[in-house]
Amino acid sequence: MDLVANVLLSAGASPAMISCVEEIPEFTPKTHALYINVGTLTADRLPGMMMAAQVANDCNKPWVLDPVAAGASGFRLRACLDLLKLRPTVVRGNGSEIMALFKGSVDENSKGADSTHESTDAVAAAKSLAQSSGSIVAVSGAVDIVTDGQRVVGAKNGVAMLQKITATGCSVTALIAAFVAIDPSQPFEATATALSVFGLAGEIGMSKANGPASLRTNLIDALHGLDRTTVLQHANVSNI
Amino acid sequence: MDLVANVLLSAGASPAMISCVEEIPEFTPKTHALYINVGTLTADRLPGMMMAAQVANDCNKPWVLDPVAAGASGFRLRACLDLLKLRPTVVRGNGSEIMALFKGSVDENSKGADSTHESTDAVAAAKSLAQSSGSIVAVSGAVDIVTDGQRVVGAKNGVAMLQKITATGCSVTALIAAFVAIDPSQPFEATATALSVFGLAGEIGMSKANGPASLRTNLIDALHGLDRTTVLQHANVSNI
Amino acid sequence: MDLVANVLLSAGASPAMISCVEEIPEFTPKTHALYINVGTLTADRLPGMMMAAQVANDCNKPWVLDPVAAGASGFRLRACLDLLKLRPTVVRGNGSEIMALFKGSVDENSKGADSTHESTDAVAAAKSLAQSSGSIVAVSGAVDIVTDGQRVVGAKNGVAMLQKITATGCSVTALIAAFVAIDPSQPFEATATALSVFGLAGEIGMSKANGPASLRTNLIDALHGLDRTTVLQHANVSNI
Repeated sequence: MDLVANVLLSAGASPAMISCVEEIPEFTPKTHALYINVGTLTADRLPGMMMAAQVANDCNKPWVLDPVAAGASGFRLRACLDLLKLRPTVVRGNGSEIMALFKGSVDENSKGADSTHESTDAVAAAKSLAQSSGSIVAVSGAVDIVTDGQRVVGAKNGVAMLQKITATGCSVTALIAAFVAIDPSQPFEATATALSVFGLAGEIGMSKANGPASLRTNLIDALHGLDRTTVLQHANVSNI
Repeated sequence: MDLVANVLLSAGASPAMISCVEEIPEFTPKTHALYINVGTLTADRLPGMMMAAQVANDCNKPWVLDPVAAGASGFRLRACLDLLKLRPTVVRGNGSEIMALFKGSVDENSKGADSTHESTDAVAAAKSLAQSSGSIVAVSGAVDIVTDGQRVVGAKNGVAMLQKITATGCSVTALIAAFVAIDPSQPFEATATALSVFGLAGEIGMSKANGPASLRTNLIDALHGLDRTTVLQHANVSNI
Repeated sequence: MDLVANVLLSAGASPAMISCVEEIPEFTPKTHALYINVGTLTADRLPGMMMAAQVANDCNKPWVLDPVAAGASGFRLRACLDLLKLRPTVVRGNGSEIMALFKGSVDENSKGADSTHESTDAVAAAKSLAQSSGSIVAVSGAVDIVTDGQRVVGAKNGVAMLQKITATGCSVTALIAAFVAIDPSQPFEATATALSVFGLAGEIGMSKANGPASLRTNLIDALHGLDRTTVLQHANVSNI
């Protein structure tokens, strides 16, 4: 939650972290986008997540789902599938998470939040999941995949060491939510742009990094310093 | 909680984070000051907060309240007002939070923990709240305001980029608690000094920062390195 | 949890943080080692901790206990002693924590997670606790102590400023779990090596640190960059 909030602040967004069912119906309508992350899932927290998604739908707010470790257990998989039925605007996971959602089955080799599949292995699964769910589906990896079920683009910015920092996946999903909030009518474009911008900040940050922790610092600093010209020059997004 | 604990450790304090009702009556008397932060409020956590404040009062320990996002929802506002009735030694919020407590009403434009008001717009509210509550009231902003209901001082140290780091507000409130613990008979002076010292550490940290994340690192390092001479030379506190 | 996960990732491990009783029986058998840390103990979380330890035992997975602030309250002490009965492979605490477990009594001078005893004051307690519990017992301090009840070694790497960073103790216990996972038949050697490697990363990180926050960054970077040669050259472990 710390990295997620700092990424959002650095990008110019204003995060509020609320998990309390007493507050969700009242506060959700004041937001520009809702982000649900099942990382620290418990049976107690699930009703709040479901309620928040429903409130967002009721007041036409875009919402974004991060199905962290979706295939790690039956309980977690069912929670993610139940949230998916509430039709998030965007779903962003790694290869293993998106394949678990597509197959609807637990991953016997799950390593939790770390993927055991390449994003490119999950293109067909992502496309099919986008068609059945009605959501934009994004798959993070060496190449980030984004699909609306018809179109497929690949965002190639980023560096491998980002995987050695906890919650970078959670953070890029939060950035997607912030980008979708700007123009909810174009979630496909917003998702591809957010993935590319985050990856680009990682590339800039990597140039002076000595390891994962200085990369984390530099990533946030770079995100805060990014301007339109740099993004247009270095964003690497293309059809697949 | 991570930033709060690291700020306290860097300043020479010894933080213990406890939210378990079974431990509060036994551990609270061993502390030098209690700090209650409603940031991650849930209905489950509120009874522990109320209990801790009561135990602190019963054993004459100073305690400090951070009414995070007080105006974001009715539930949160009522929780903050209930805690306020237990007469914290100090309350520290941003402009929007202090005005919500003063008015006793939900803020329809609430952005959660981010303020939509300048601290200087909240001077009258802070003064009145200090009179009615019996607490020292502090309002963070470009100028930090501290009042006991009669006196009003402004602490002008700090840099704007601190607002781009999550939990800096929570952290400065924790530092206030640590300073109040040193001499509970002078909470007004302790509060103004803590705000000024934290802001000064931000100024020193900013000189070599490339963005919010390196500022966060430098802020903690600077706080750890501050000495009495530097503070006396650069602290900028004056009557308003 | 943030520092713990980043330390594990930097060292090449793959952490998954799960506290949900619905998931524990299904996910624990997929891990190579379990780590239980009572830092944020609540009555709600304890059953999950007990269950996870039992599942780990049932499927012969090594597990490691960090009895954070064991002597801070009766509730916390009993929780730690109950977990200890489930015979962790390794227990790692500071001097005050290990002495509280050994004595089975609350520490009236407890400062929470910060120790009020030197590790070297706890050698006899650690040895006796290792004999009665059947666990490897490690005591962090200026010299880190490791004992199986017969042998006692001291690991002398590390720098004092690590104590000014929250969760460094929690993180080194996590690293012990990762090392024990590699060869569960040699937990004594794994524990001493993990303590030494973490301390060595601290020494390397300290050379360019300006305070606790840059040390934290450098520590993780150094851990990620460590190679076998450097460890063999600089690890400082000897019999006591």
